[in-house]
Amino acid sequence: MYDKIITISREFGSAGHTIGKKVAEKLGIPCYDSEIVDKVALESGLLKELVEEKGEYLSAAGRISTSFTLYNLYSNMSKEDIIWAAQVKVIKELAEKGPCVIIGRCAEYILRERTDLLRVFICADMESRAEHIVSVYGEKDESPEKRLKDKDKKRAAYYKYYTETEWGDPLCHDICLNSGTLGIDKCVEIIAGM
Amino acid sequence: MYDKIITISREFGSAGHTIGKKVAEKLGIPCYDSEIVDKVALESGLLKELVEEKGEYLSAAGRISTSFTLYNLYSNMSKEDIIWAAQVKVIKELAEKGPCVIIGRCAEYILRERTDLLRVFICADMESRAEHIVSVYGEKDESPEKRLKDKDKKRAAYYKYYTETEWGDPLCHDICLNSGTLGIDKCVEIIAGM
Repeated sequence: MYDKIITISREFGSAGHTIGKKVAEKLGIPCYDSEIVDKVALESGLLKELVEEKGEYLSAAGRISTSFTLYNLYSNMSKEDIIWAAQVKVIKELAEKGPCVIIGRCAEYILRERTDLLRVFICADMESRAEHIVSVYGEKDESPEKRLKDKDKKRAAYYKYYTETEWGDPLCHDICLNSGTLGIDKCVEIIAGM
Repeated sequence: MYDKIITISREFGSAGHTIGKKVAEKLGIPCYDSEIVDKVALESGLLKELVEEKGEYLSAAGRISTSFTLYNLYSNMSKEDIIWAAQVKVIKELAEKGPCVIIGRCAEYILRERTDLLRVFICADMESRAEHIVSVYGEKDESPEKRLKDKDKKRAAYYKYYTETEWGDPLCHDICLNSGTLGIDKCVEIIAGM
């Protein structure tokens, strides 16, 4: 029942992306992450960079008006809403194709009416996440903790805005794994084993 | 590393007790639940019923003074604090005996310095939990939802008071399982498989 579509929500820096890719490899099914960004960009007509920036994060300024863009098909919608609508369409289409792993982008919410989901949430303590983002993205002017807190805040706001549920709520998932204590390989083993 | 002591926190009505018992049976290790109540009663000199009532729940009235009890060894402590102190001692002693499953009672917090823990949290949606408590404890004057909300509130208050962390925080556990969607047997299989 739970072996068809695996959605992986993850805290930034919790290695959820790596875990998702490895699970997909192990099960021999596709893993969608950056592919979603490409498809949403194509679908919405908006720049890939913008889709990347606005597809999972809501900034303090909230939604931005599209009035200054050339894109006017949905002229009464903000860019975030256009991206959301395209994301819903793309994710539903990908799920229709068959078994896969979908990383982030509220997929467990978008696909909530399907009965063949395994909804995973990956979290980790601040220390492990800080270490992970420095190893993947390098040092920046801001401390890793500050970068993580900022991302957490924006992802939570985005999630709440579009799904009306709390980011990381265990009840919105079937399983939550702490990659900081379990490690990447153990998480992969548990998910693939289900 | 994670196969020695399994702590199971659970929402009331999420079948965490049943899951814990089944995991212990499967692994051939003891499961401590009501045994803890017996031992804490013995250790504290307080009635078993009181230990059961105050060992996981904090009422709105907060802690009760012991001034009216005959028990005066810790006369400056509330009954809740006496129970907590006895619970810490009993749980640490049980863990010292070897591999086991310990259900509830903030065991994952009490044993947090050990490196051989697998800390599990079991949750479920309100509907499954309501169904579960009616099947186990029967109907009562209050609706199952009201009973669940009341228990949740008191458990969360107790947990926060004694551990200074949030009840059910995924970061305080290694794995959170949604028994409402996965079912009891799948949860047992995942935990025992780890």
